[in-house]
Amino acid sequence: MADQATGLNVIGKPYPKKDARIKVTGECKFAADLVVPGMLHGKMLRSPHAHARILGIDTSRAERLPGVKAVITGKDFPGITYGNFIHTRDYLPLALDRVRYIGEEVAAVAAIDEDMAYEGLDLIEVEYEPLRAVFGPEEAMKEGAPLLYDDKPNNISSKSEWAFGDVEKGFEASYLIKEETFETQAIKHGMLETHTCIGYWDATDRITLEACKQSPYTAWRQLAMGLGVPPSKIRMKQTFVGAGNSGGKQEALPMDFAAVMLSKKTGRPVKISHTMEEVLLMGHMRHPYKIRLKLGVDKEGLIQALDCFAIADGGAHSSIGQLSIYLISAFMMMAYKIPNARYRGYRVYTNKSFCGALRGHCAPQINFALEGLMDEIAQELGMDPLDIRKRNAMTPGYEAPNGFKITTCGLREALDKAREMSGWDEKRGKLPKYRGIGVASTGFISGSNIMGMSACSAMLKVLEDGTVALQSGATDVGQGCDTVLPMIVAEVLGIEPDDVSFALIDSDLTPMDGGTWSSRVTFYAGNAAKMAALDAKRQLGRVAAEVFDVKEEDLIFKHRQVSVKNDPEQSMDFARLVRYCQNRKGMTIMGRGYYNAPVGNLDFSKGTGNFSAAYSYYAQVCEVEVDPETGLVDICNMWMAHDGGRELNPMLVRGQLIGSTVMHVGQALFEQLIRDEKGNTFNTSFRDYKMPTFKDIPGSQELFSLEIPDPEGPFGAKEAGEGASAPVLASIANAVSDAVGTRFRRLPIIPEEVLKAIKGKSR
Amino acid sequence: MADQATGLNVIGKPYPKKDARIKVTGECKFAADLVVPGMLHGKMLRSPHAHARILGIDTSRAERLPGVKAVITGKDFPGITYGNFIHTRDYLPLALDRVRYIGEEVAAVAAIDEDMAYEGLDLIEVEYEPLRAVFGPEEAMKEGAPLLYDDKPNNISSKSEWAFGDVEKGFEASYLIKEETFETQAIKHGMLETHTCIGYWDATDRITLEACKQSPYTAWRQLAMGLGVPPSKIRMKQTFVGAGNSGGKQEALPMDFAAVMLSKKTGRPVKISHTMEEVLLMGHMRHPYKIRLKLGVDKEGLIQALDCFAIADGGAHSSIGQLSIYLISAFMMMAYKIPNARYRGYRVYTNKSFCGALRGHCAPQINFALEGLMDEIAQELGMDPLDIRKRNAMTPGYEAPNGFKITTCGLREALDKAREMSGWDEKRGKLPKYRGIGVASTGFISGSNIMGMSACSAMLKVLEDGTVALQSGATDVGQGCDTVLPMIVAEVLGIEPDDVSFALIDSDLTPMDGGTWSSRVTFYAGNAAKMAALDAKRQLGRVAAEVFDVKEEDLIFKHRQVSVKNDPEQSMDFARLVRYCQNRKGMTIMGRGYYNAPVGNLDFSKGTGNFSAAYSYYAQVCEVEVDPETGLVDICNMWMAHDGGRELNPMLVRGQLIGSTVMHVGQALFEQLIRDEKGNTFNTSFRDYKMPTFKDIPGSQELFSLEIPDPEGPFGAKEAGEGASAPVLASIANAVSDAVGTRFRRLPIIPEEVLKAIKGKSR
Repeated sequence: MADQATGLNVIGKPYPKKDARIKVTGECKFAADLVVPGMLHGKMLRSPHAHARILGIDTSRAERLPGVKAVITGKDFPGITYGNFIHTRDYLPLALDRVRYIGEEVAAVAAIDEDMAYEGLDLIEVEYEPLRAVFGPEEAMKEGAPLLYDDKPNNISSKSEWAFGDVEKGFEASYLIKEETFETQAIKHGMLETHTCIGYWDATDRITLEACKQSPYTAWRQLAMGLGVPPSKIRMKQTFVGAGNSGGKQEALPMDFAAVMLSKKTGRPVKISHTMEEVLLMGHMRHPYKIRLKLGVDKEGLIQALDCFAIADGGAHSSIGQLSIYLISAFMMMAYKIPNARYRGYRVYTNKSFCGALRGHCAPQINFALEGLMDEIAQELGMDPLDIRKRNAMTPGYEAPNGFKITTCGLREALDKAREMSGWDEKRGKLPKYRGIGVASTGFISGSNIMGMSACSAMLKVLEDGTVALQSGATDVGQGCDTVLPMIVAEVLGIEPDDVSFALIDSDLTPMDGGTWSSRVTFYAGNAAKMAALDAKRQLGRVAAEVFDVKEEDLIFKHRQVSVKNDPEQSMDFARLVRYCQNRKGMTIMGRGYYNAPVGNLDFSKGTGNFSAAYSYYAQVCEVEVDPETGLVDICNMWMAHDGGRELNPMLVRGQLIGSTVMHVGQALFEQLIRDEKGNTFNTSFRDYKMPTFKDIPGSQELFSLEIPDPEGPFGAKEAGEGASAPVLASIANAVSDAVGTRFRRLPIIPEEVLKAIKGKSR
Repeated sequence: MADQATGLNVIGKPYPKKDARIKVTGECKFAADLVVPGMLHGKMLRSPHAHARILGIDTSRAERLPGVKAVITGKDFPGITYGNFIHTRDYLPLALDRVRYIGEEVAAVAAIDEDMAYEGLDLIEVEYEPLRAVFGPEEAMKEGAPLLYDDKPNNISSKSEWAFGDVEKGFEASYLIKEETFETQAIKHGMLETHTCIGYWDATDRITLEACKQSPYTAWRQLAMGLGVPPSKIRMKQTFVGAGNSGGKQEALPMDFAAVMLSKKTGRPVKISHTMEEVLLMGHMRHPYKIRLKLGVDKEGLIQALDCFAIADGGAHSSIGQLSIYLISAFMMMAYKIPNARYRGYRVYTNKSFCGALRGHCAPQINFALEGLMDEIAQELGMDPLDIRKRNAMTPGYEAPNGFKITTCGLREALDKAREMSGWDEKRGKLPKYRGIGVASTGFISGSNIMGMSACSAMLKVLEDGTVALQSGATDVGQGCDTVLPMIVAEVLGIEPDDVSFALIDSDLTPMDGGTWSSRVTFYAGNAAKMAALDAKRQLGRVAAEVFDVKEEDLIFKHRQVSVKNDPEQSMDFARLVRYCQNRKGMTIMGRGYYNAPVGNLDFSKGTGNFSAAYSYYAQVCEVEVDPETGLVDICNMWMAHDGGRELNPMLVRGQLIGSTVMHVGQALFEQLIRDEKGNTFNTSFRDYKMPTFKDIPGSQELFSLEIPDPEGPFGAKEAGEGASAPVLASIANAVSDAVGTRFRRLPIIPEEVLKAIKGKSR
């Protein structure tokens, strides 16, 4: 039945995720499960040096090993670098003359099984000339440091430098100025599904790559770039993607190039599956940041000026780093009204595994810094941390000096609601010893147009049983677009979500799409799906209007029926109308639609422009208890109020909010990659790399959605999920600080640091 | 470069078939090559009785056999019959209480490999009560004959009875009347690829069938019908289809039902692949016909009246028979102006493997009869056989009494051309002894709207490298739509056929389609693809017009360029325009189109209506030499002139014309299924079932296309290929008759018959 208030039948209801059942029963086939006739198995040879020149590779012994069918090196490729942005194309399919981190791919073997492939790897002889390596970004920026790329002085991979307003004047006008440095660590997505691909290069030079990709069209484009072929020569077939990839399966990887090239050499399909050790060794990691933040406020706590200097440790490749270094500054400007601001951000190459996108993509890091400093300022001013945030919070219609145009905005309401839910006023400053409460708030984006090709598109066909086969360019990586996009189509056509199928991407078939990043899928692909559904509805409506002899606008599509407004007698099954169109009118009903947000392309080296067509807001309160004996932090409760527009499927939004929170408990308290001084990573298994598990989940999580429909989002939706990752580090850190009375400006807040703080106090 | 006369760049050129290379290299994966993780192998238990009641089936021993994972019988299905037309749904997924021919499926086993599945079959115990069987259609029609279906009196499976004009009056007005009976035999398509499918039924009750199907949507619908589920629950994935299927892979088969049901029972994918023995045992066969034809002509040889009485031996199921029995009469009316005609056609059930569609679908049979009788009449009138045909030939604009509306028609020109090419006038009556020459002509259809859903549709997306990913609902079964449809798209958009990809059908993705039958693909799917391309061109044109500041109609899309008419300076790469749309305008270019011929639905029980939107015409001359010692017929030369509209790809049309001819050499001279009196088929291997091979190919084949563009066909095309099958039986039979001086009215014309005729003469 339709919701009384909204008139919506499908939207807003908690439909379970479409693939939930086949995933929990184990029936769902992931890339690693796939078997192709005649398939060989490939493995990658990786550099044992953090930085070295390749003097020569002798593959002859490996090639002679029975069972080994082909061996390739970087020389088998045309030598074209690939990447995301014009100035940061520094990936090679396989290393050519140099390796830049331990784990970089230098050769690959295809053999009859994995064991033989490993044996083949052992027989490849690479002559290296070790080079001086550099691991710290600040050290890497210094004159005289070894350069990773000759054309990148000071190892700066990308930078973003901008200023709006008059920062100096702002500081002059400030009553209180604080400046602190915050540091965050490298972490890994911790996806349970390792990267897997099957490559096939046929006699007509058509190349097929079947792989678990988050943004198949991004990988498609990169694969074409590195192979030196037009993208249409490549058929990218997406498999189900294991949840938790969270930005880690965006790009074409050396394994993808190796699989197709080994296939070209052997004439057989080649499958390559990474081990978890390879995943944790290789990349993409979350960027570690060192952020120096200077914040000036007036007596009321209103922000006068903000200056940020950030250095990101990018590792050996650029990946999406040109965006990452801008993002710190973008998220810095997304929650509060900041009249004067300056940013200088540098992403630096180091001889470590490379960093890229990870759930929240730089928002958690800057939020950790800014929200920490906000707390310190509030403390110094004697203000309530919630109050200072509310005072500075963005409001609907606000236009930020950097160009952000705020439309709907419920940040103040979110802060109020978080206060109420958490019992903030009863708890703040009144909790027992070693118990603390902290708050953090954030703004987030509902997608962006940062890439050249950013529109999302959808095609659909309406079937004779009244169902719809939807093809979206969007990829479900666990976030739920396999369910939400069908819901949108169902709402438009007056049918049920079960009536709409959702297909995996196949670049030969499914429509173009910008990709699954920047929390854009519901907003962009949702609008595209809606338009495709409206397109089909128009075609059906024309026929129905003819049948009923009424105007199209007098038709109602609802409950799998098409009927005439104010004349309930005139009605027919939706399915019957489709069959009427097919069988009597000789029509087939197909809809198409695409959507690109009306925000223009962003110049993120200058930091100017409206990043997103809609911004979402979060306020999170966290309550912790610290064990003074062990230093262990127990997260008792988390409360989150958010403005994500209308929640299209509250069950899935809830899952995303909880997931984003739990994932970041790890970064806040214990998760990190541990390396030695030579660049070796120590913890390359999930036994040693500590991710949050059941026992680390907050004692309770209470969520509240403000449900403010956004005019641009499909059925009023905005981003809802990824943004929830942003305040977690800060709300936990602020709560721990409240509990032990010491600021923590470096992550993770491991028990040793907590104990140190407690002992420092008690001493 | 564009053709001077037509202005066309792509159309009319001999592009090789897109899949030719991967097929000849063996890289192309057919259904039998596919492997799916966890897959089981299924086998079918078949009835040893031509007609029997099933008293019971004991599967318990089979089920207990280790390695056997499931056994199913007809009781595992909901008991719903399925089929093509409302009144002829007589298929069951597996037999329930009765079997009606030797080879009918009664149970199926899924096991870990094929051997285990066969062992499982051996352990199934079926208790049969044999029933009286009937094998001859005339016997089956008699009162007291055993009925195959209780609701089908006289075993009549379907009938078509109609009359136009006044037949009696026509005969009264005739100068010469001849009445003869012609008989044709059962043959099998002789596809080299046997039927194969992989079925999968998942926990969400989504059913996937991957199979080699000629009309995937027909099989999709039938599978849904027999399983009692909505079609959208089924995902039909088409594999490459081995050439030569020629109508034999249209429908859902018991193996398809068995595969999905065995999967439901086991939770694992199940693959079933027929042996060639099963293919030759089971069906669909070509309908054997007994045709009594009475033809009256005036002194000039002009047809006054035609009366046809036909009995088709349909075997144990209806298949597409309701259409088949009409088709005889339709093709009878398709070449000549026949003012008065009557038809009574009966398709009869017998306890043999069932008959269905096969290249030419009833046209060769009626053509054999009518063209034979025409020759006899000509002989009696002392007229040249080519002359009598030309006199009666249809002409452009002719409207037949049964409703056929002739638009373009080059039959007279084809007859003239065949006369010229073959040197007819120098040969007819002037050849040495035992050498003969014969002619036959025919009309054919360019698709029809006989099924409920008959439109073809296409979707396409234009990619950033200036290529197009085309999705058509059409299936390539060797006829070449994988190449011709991309050619059509390329012509519209001014790009090259290599720039357009063509995808296999996947019912979750590719657009709806009526199916691959009635020679409709180029005409219907071609028009749909053209419309989709025009749709995309409009979108691109709007942007280009804006860029160049001109009107859309002033743009030229040619040679991968978009330029302004009369202003060669203003021009940009097609690919650049696409990227401009994508990256600057945020568009994605998608086109859609569907086409249904403007001919209405045909009522083929009454025989009224315009069957096709365009008719194609063929005239074929055959020259043979008969060995008087052995009776062997050597086909020396074949000449064919045809009006198939504009040939879109002459190389592929040539392949089709030659293929249709060679295939029917078999039916004319030696091919047949041989059965004993109990209904056992003797020749169920290609060693025993004689198909034409290289040594049977005519000594030469000369082809000529009249190239009369049709206004309704895409770029002027009409049917070109299947129709060539129609005159072959008759042109050969007429040539053999000419060589030995005796009429042959029964096929095949085996050496024994030829020798008998020669000896009868010389006696």
